[in-house]
Amino acid sequence: MSEFSLIYQYFKSATSSHKNTVLGIGDDCAVSNIPEDCQLVSCVDTLVMGRHFPEGTQAYAIGYKSVAVNLSDLAAMGAVPYAILLGISLPDCDAVWLAEFSQGITDICAKFGVELIGGDTTKSDKLTISVTALGFVKAGTAITRDGAQIGDIVCVSGNIGSASYALDCLFHQQATTLQSALDLPNPQVELAQKLAPWVNSMIDISDGLGQDLGHILTASKVGAMLFLDKIPCADELSLLSDDKRWQYQLNGGDDYELCFTLSPENFTLFSQKYPNSIFAIGKIIADKKLVFLNHQKPVNFCVKGYQHF
Amino acid sequence: MSEFSLIYQYFKSATSSHKNTVLGIGDDCAVSNIPEDCQLVSCVDTLVMGRHFPEGTQAYAIGYKSVAVNLSDLAAMGAVPYAILLGISLPDCDAVWLAEFSQGITDICAKFGVELIGGDTTKSDKLTISVTALGFVKAGTAITRDGAQIGDIVCVSGNIGSASYALDCLFHQQATTLQSALDLPNPQVELAQKLAPWVNSMIDISDGLGQDLGHILTASKVGAMLFLDKIPCADELSLLSDDKRWQYQLNGGDDYELCFTLSPENFTLFSQKYPNSIFAIGKIIADKKLVFLNHQKPVNFCVKGYQHF
Repeated sequence: MSEFSLIYQYFKSATSSHKNTVLGIGDDCAVSNIPEDCQLVSCVDTLVMGRHFPEGTQAYAIGYKSVAVNLSDLAAMGAVPYAILLGISLPDCDAVWLAEFSQGITDICAKFGVELIGGDTTKSDKLTISVTALGFVKAGTAITRDGAQIGDIVCVSGNIGSASYALDCLFHQQATTLQSALDLPNPQVELAQKLAPWVNSMIDISDGLGQDLGHILTASKVGAMLFLDKIPCADELSLLSDDKRWQYQLNGGDDYELCFTLSPENFTLFSQKYPNSIFAIGKIIADKKLVFLNHQKPVNFCVKGYQHF
Repeated sequence: MSEFSLIYQYFKSATSSHKNTVLGIGDDCAVSNIPEDCQLVSCVDTLVMGRHFPEGTQAYAIGYKSVAVNLSDLAAMGAVPYAILLGISLPDCDAVWLAEFSQGITDICAKFGVELIGGDTTKSDKLTISVTALGFVKAGTAITRDGAQIGDIVCVSGNIGSASYALDCLFHQQATTLQSALDLPNPQVELAQKLAPWVNSMIDISDGLGQDLGHILTASKVGAMLFLDKIPCADELSLLSDDKRWQYQLNGGDDYELCFTLSPENFTLFSQKYPNSIFAIGKIIADKKLVFLNHQKPVNFCVKGYQHF
């Protein structure tokens, strides 16, 4: 079967026309209108079987997550997602696998109003999925990592550590209720758009809260005091020892929640408006360090984060 | 070394700021301005070691070609290239290999005024490169495959068959002067922009002239008469038997020349203006077939093209 037939057959329902798409899949390129006064926001993430997905991960989850991680990057800029382009290298043309994989892609695209506008399918003995996501922001409103101000409140949008805990459970063949945090992450697209006008800096947590907050601090040339006891976690994690839980929360990855900083005034306003979507976990300080406190007592903790090599 | 350090270290010179780039590599996403009255043109191509590149291909050529094949897709729409996003999965962090690979990327980006605005580097035992290319067209001017008219002249922009001939030479350890056609293809970006106002349909030749012209015919619901003796080729190919040469020209791939159709009037005008960039090789007919003639005599020829599975 040719790549063209493949793409058409399995992804047809993800290619339903978005109002901005002039020409979707089927020509050399897609052609798109950019909404008035908007800028284009773009990112790429590549996922490799056995590295970003444990062997045996369901095809549906692989498709879903490949798009989710990119929408999470768009969310971190406060962007409205528009479309994806999908490069897949896969071992063989397995109809059942492809049907489930494409259903995962189709479902997350439908959920976020995203269209598949370009694709390339090649054969390889290693499953590799590269997704480019495109979105829009009103000109000049994209949220970057470099705007954190001294005195800002550091916040996260939800429970941290669930995905890396679930991955560990999988390796140790231990039951967990948190499997879906690993398999089907929920990019905080809507929340990010609500947050965008209020925050000074924002990032999505993909490589671990420690490392990702570190990117905000480096870009903003500031430091932070982190209150370890304030980082929200799922019930299962609250049963762990502090140090174990912190490892998952700060050095784990795959959370796809947002980490952001707000002035104390905006924090008060926003947290009244959306009490369940904002958790204060720290404070931006002038000293360019990441300092940890647990119940107000200093704690030594080594941030490793996720190193790709 | 982290992916961030990798990307910064090796691709710095490909990330020099394009006037449309508001925010390049280094945040969750890139942010770009779209030029006034323009539409966004986008495509993705994935290349896998051992499949799209023979084992042993120079790292420089791998980098160069990964971008070239995408710029060729943009060219086929008549688009002005703007930027690329690059997803690389590679076996290990080999400094020499990466330096050469990134030089290939940097050189072709510089040649075509293209900026690297996004990247993701992951580890994998199989080298896989996925490039998304972004470009612009004035609204409503993108050239598609579906505009071929009965009576149109079918043209190509240069020699056809060189790359697949060179690949065959490589397999048979036979010397050739055409190696660079395989390794360092030259996307017809400038020519395509000149052609765009004149042509009725256009495609780039990546999967073989036979299959790619076939896409124009299918999309345009027409047929074509192809004059095999008129398809231009390099000197080395002219020494081959007709059938061997036609195999390279029609069923080979990797040419990255353009195939396009023009009205006879526009053909006359354009070929006077650019005599070295336009070669008439056939005619669009109403009968939905691809018919072959050699020196005006009918020839049976089976178009296979490149099947990805």
